[in-house]
Amino acid sequence: MNGHPLHRLRVLFLSALFLLGGCATMQPDPLPSWSDGPARQAIVNFVRQTTDSASPQFVPPGQRIATFDQDGTLWVEQPLYTQVLFALERVRDVVRAQPALANEEPFKTVVAGDRAAMAKFTERDLFKIVAASESGLSVDAFAQVVKSWLATAKHPKFQRPYTELVYAPMVEAMKYLRANGYRTYIVTGGTQQFVRAFAEEVYGVPPEQVVGTMFKINYEARDGKPALVTAPEIFFVNDKGGKPVGINMVIGRRPQAAFGNSDGDQQMLEWATGADGARLAMIVLHDDATREFAYGPAAGQPDSKVGTFSQALYDEAAKKGWTVISMKRDWKRVFAFEP
Amino acid sequence: MNGHPLHRLRVLFLSALFLLGGCATMQPDPLPSWSDGPARQAIVNFVRQTTDSASPQFVPPGQRIATFDQDGTLWVEQPLYTQVLFALERVRDVVRAQPALANEEPFKTVVAGDRAAMAKFTERDLFKIVAASESGLSVDAFAQVVKSWLATAKHPKFQRPYTELVYAPMVEAMKYLRANGYRTYIVTGGTQQFVRAFAEEVYGVPPEQVVGTMFKINYEARDGKPALVTAPEIFFVNDKGGKPVGINMVIGRRPQAAFGNSDGDQQMLEWATGADGARLAMIVLHDDATREFAYGPAAGQPDSKVGTFSQALYDEAAKKGWTVISMKRDWKRVFAFEP
Repeated sequence: MNGHPLHRLRVLFLSALFLLGGCATMQPDPLPSWSDGPARQAIVNFVRQTTDSASPQFVPPGQRIATFDQDGTLWVEQPLYTQVLFALERVRDVVRAQPALANEEPFKTVVAGDRAAMAKFTERDLFKIVAASESGLSVDAFAQVVKSWLATAKHPKFQRPYTELVYAPMVEAMKYLRANGYRTYIVTGGTQQFVRAFAEEVYGVPPEQVVGTMFKINYEARDGKPALVTAPEIFFVNDKGGKPVGINMVIGRRPQAAFGNSDGDQQMLEWATGADGARLAMIVLHDDATREFAYGPAAGQPDSKVGTFSQALYDEAAKKGWTVISMKRDWKRVFAFEP
Repeated sequence: MNGHPLHRLRVLFLSALFLLGGCATMQPDPLPSWSDGPARQAIVNFVRQTTDSASPQFVPPGQRIATFDQDGTLWVEQPLYTQVLFALERVRDVVRAQPALANEEPFKTVVAGDRAAMAKFTERDLFKIVAASESGLSVDAFAQVVKSWLATAKHPKFQRPYTELVYAPMVEAMKYLRANGYRTYIVTGGTQQFVRAFAEEVYGVPPEQVVGTMFKINYEARDGKPALVTAPEIFFVNDKGGKPVGINMVIGRRPQAAFGNSDGDQQMLEWATGADGARLAMIVLHDDATREFAYGPAAGQPDSKVGTFSQALYDEAAKKGWTVISMKRDWKRVFAFEP
């Protein structure tokens, strides 16, 4: 019966199935930048528990939501948040468009290039500078400004574009989660419009999956056409207790997994883990002065200017079984450009 | 060569392709509740133009967004918005939980059942009643209250559950768009939390695709657990110029298609059609007193209490080529329960 066409067809089918099965077991490691250890294992276990339909902790695909803080969790946040560096570099353009600001603080100090005075800027000063960088522009025009800046600006320490300073292991974790039916959201204290300008290209996260701080936006006519124009007025602060609120506003579901690195993420981690079923909460600890930076509790500086990670958060993480990711120990490489 | 296995395989493949092709042409009409006419044709043309990869107006799947107003566009809004009827029926429960309100207007009038006084309620009175129905509850608890109410409440004219009073042709249009790669969003003047409680079951629209009016929500402890609790304070009004702003907040993309029925939708329709490429804007005209209601311009009442559809909107629709859907003429049936 060997020559019978039906038999041949069956052999072809079985061979195809075998090849497909073989491919599956030969799939490359989805997390090559992670060292073997509890952090890597926590991610893999979580995905297995929640995606195996035979598991009691199975989560239906539509409910698979993972949220990621950005600054210090997905990319470098030292010496200052990238959006603040962007806004500082934009001050000259802002003053050119609104000359009255040249005599107003904190703009006057920036234009004068007085670095000693700039180092003493308060949060309020920096907020004014960030607001001025975005307000008065349409949402579309602002996105173009951000893209242009990112195309040429370089990080003071690494001398590379900021978009290359994303953490390779975290991008792998996002892709791995997405390959397993999770939707990955960025939930940032930075502004929603700033992060939307590059999140799709850099992280594969589309605009509808970016939750952030929001200025008031008005619908108005600009050059005779309707436009969404940003006002210099804060509308929503997506930080600390604001993060679960922002998640509700844009997603309307409680995440199954959340990734953060600072006190500003504590409530998001609490919210993600505060319900039944398999839950994953991870905190990036910056303890690698050689490859990135060492700050926060790793350097005995719980109150650093950015990315505050207090002892209280550390204690809560230990109590609740959240996983602390040691950059030094858990990441084989930090950036994709490393050899 | 007829008996050669490769030839046989080719014949099998071609047969399979033919069968698949045959199935495609035998697919049932996706819009059976729509009469042949310009409204139906506008939808079909729009889908063809934007999903055929050879078309100059092709839209990549990720950018396929269609937004729908709810009240008067997806379901009945007369004699009052369903959410207002819900809130009025909830007043007794609200007063039981907060007895101090029993002596406060407009609650006193509702508890007394003074229908003549209730008929004179201002928008401000109704807003207070809607706010009281939602505030003080966690987001999860409120969803349960809405679900319970919808399970038993009946519409005064139709004597059927409100969830049966959705327009069958619009549900078909949503499904047809989704089958062609569009994501369908509800963009409502009602509250986001109210509509999220039933949108997935009734329209197949998940919580992350509901944009609505928002009360302030606080992240706080409730019974020792973190909860999102609604405050009696308005945070965002998703109506008129607020609709494009709400769309930006939750979606971050300009829709390719928008469906509305009143002046409150005008800016959303403008926004959706205010860019290049194939665009679809449709307005439901309530001109069917027999099967539903006749109001607005169809009844010479441009300023009816709900669903205002002014002559100005009518004129703009004509000028911009937006399609007016005549319930009477364009819909073979209005509700799924019709024979």
